[in-house]
Amino acid sequence: MSTINVISTSKCFGGDQLVISHDSTSLGCKMKFSIFLPPKSKDGKCPVLYFLSGLTCDEQVFINKGGAQKAAATYGIIIVGPDTSPRGCNIEGETDDWDFGVGAGFYLDATQEKWKKNYNMHTYVTQELPCFVNANFPAIPDRVAISGYSMGGHGALMLALRNPGMYRSVSAFAPICNPMNCPWGKKAFSGYLGPDIETWKEWDATELVAKYKGPPLMFLIDQGKEDQYYKEKQLLPENLTNACLANKFQCITRYQEGYDHSFYFVKTFIEEHIKHHSEILNS
Amino acid sequence: MSTINVISTSKCFGGDQLVISHDSTSLGCKMKFSIFLPPKSKDGKCPVLYFLSGLTCDEQVFINKGGAQKAAATYGIIIVGPDTSPRGCNIEGETDDWDFGVGAGFYLDATQEKWKKNYNMHTYVTQELPCFVNANFPAIPDRVAISGYSMGGHGALMLALRNPGMYRSVSAFAPICNPMNCPWGKKAFSGYLGPDIETWKEWDATELVAKYKGPPLMFLIDQGKEDQYYKEKQLLPENLTNACLANKFQCITRYQEGYDHSFYFVKTFIEEHIKHHSEILNS
Repeated sequence: MSTINVISTSKCFGGDQLVISHDSTSLGCKMKFSIFLPPKSKDGKCPVLYFLSGLTCDEQVFINKGGAQKAAATYGIIIVGPDTSPRGCNIEGETDDWDFGVGAGFYLDATQEKWKKNYNMHTYVTQELPCFVNANFPAIPDRVAISGYSMGGHGALMLALRNPGMYRSVSAFAPICNPMNCPWGKKAFSGYLGPDIETWKEWDATELVAKYKGPPLMFLIDQGKEDQYYKEKQLLPENLTNACLANKFQCITRYQEGYDHSFYFVKTFIEEHIKHHSEILNS
Repeated sequence: MSTINVISTSKCFGGDQLVISHDSTSLGCKMKFSIFLPPKSKDGKCPVLYFLSGLTCDEQVFINKGGAQKAAATYGIIIVGPDTSPRGCNIEGETDDWDFGVGAGFYLDATQEKWKKNYNMHTYVTQELPCFVNANFPAIPDRVAISGYSMGGHGALMLALRNPGMYRSVSAFAPICNPMNCPWGKKAFSGYLGPDIETWKEWDATELVAKYKGPPLMFLIDQGKEDQYYKEKQLLPENLTNACLANKFQCITRYQEGYDHSFYFVKTFIEEHIKHHSEILNS
């Protein structure tokens, strides 16, 4: 287990908003993540919500702009916010594009030579990070939920589908629902996974719905109707809805009138998502 | 009246978070400000809260990190967030320091030759900006409150004291209470106002309390006990408290256990401040 370094800590809504750094073995670099500890965690262990961020985000954006701390304090939920990719691995070209490489890890384990040593965000988020969190913070290891935004929204759906039983509750804000059929996803999957489209299906939520054989799970998704990327067909929520219908997988997608892809949309609905997760995690 | 340019608009908690730019005559440059329009403003005019930001902030920081939109939507309050100084005036040295010049206008009108053409944030915030807001948005011109954070907390107190009757309600988060007696304030006042300390007293809230001859006013102040700048004696809330006691001026200063100077502190208490302003503005 690597050493824990507390980068910052600030009291917030009676709890504590921390930023932590540690050495990650699955990613081969130093990583930062945020963790909010609700007041209730001073008296005992609490359930954990992992929140995965979108393209270009680091560990700071969600805790600054997401507005999640009040609801997390109210409902007694720990929120962990990982970074969106490895950092500082000095892979040639990794910082050239905002939608590939640094800030754009897509929560998968890369198979291509250039990326496979470091770009293993799936292993990091589902294995290494929870071990580290459970060892260092008052988290209940088997009461875990996952949510995310945009690329991280897909991460939440995909990780839950690939790891049956790991997450009791799943939600997403404006997720990239079917990456292998949108420009962002095609670019990322080609780079990290290579040209064989069959391998892409293992990392695409819409494809994975048909293969899911775990305990009953439900997706709660909010999607703004004025979201620029929704209009540009980067998100494709209809494809996921159709896959869920065909496979009797419960998915509630709420199309929110007037909302765009910004954190003003996330702020608006985050409390409802945390309340939703809390009801399942505490039941 | 200068032209209104909508830089961005995003739906948030049923209202709209806008960023506006316009040409300012009092500052001699283009300025940006944020304005949140609550859902209620679609059906009629609403009271306005001006929120003044701190050193280094621009018009983005408060709307990203402050967490004010939900309460503003709930209580039907428009929130206007000006920038913290003129921008792009190309005055020699204006970007050399983070605590003087750009990002550090201190909400006063400069008298020194080098700064007096542009650094007139007092005139901008009390006259030009309200005229512009009232002409372009559904604001009730005589139901106005003011608040702010750090340098902007002082701005809120000082503007209210210098302009009796202009603001019905005043609050502040970790304000610089007595700038002429702290390092930040001495640097700013020397630069903008020159060496004559008598002139500084016209722009210092603690000094102005004794001279206040307006309608009854009350200050609500929150101050974190773990605030680094409080400990370093940049904020000096005790000096303001003593001046208020000596002059029978009502000031409630709440020392909040464990909170620092960050926006995590502002987020935590902003809803209480907006509720407080709402009760006075709507009475």
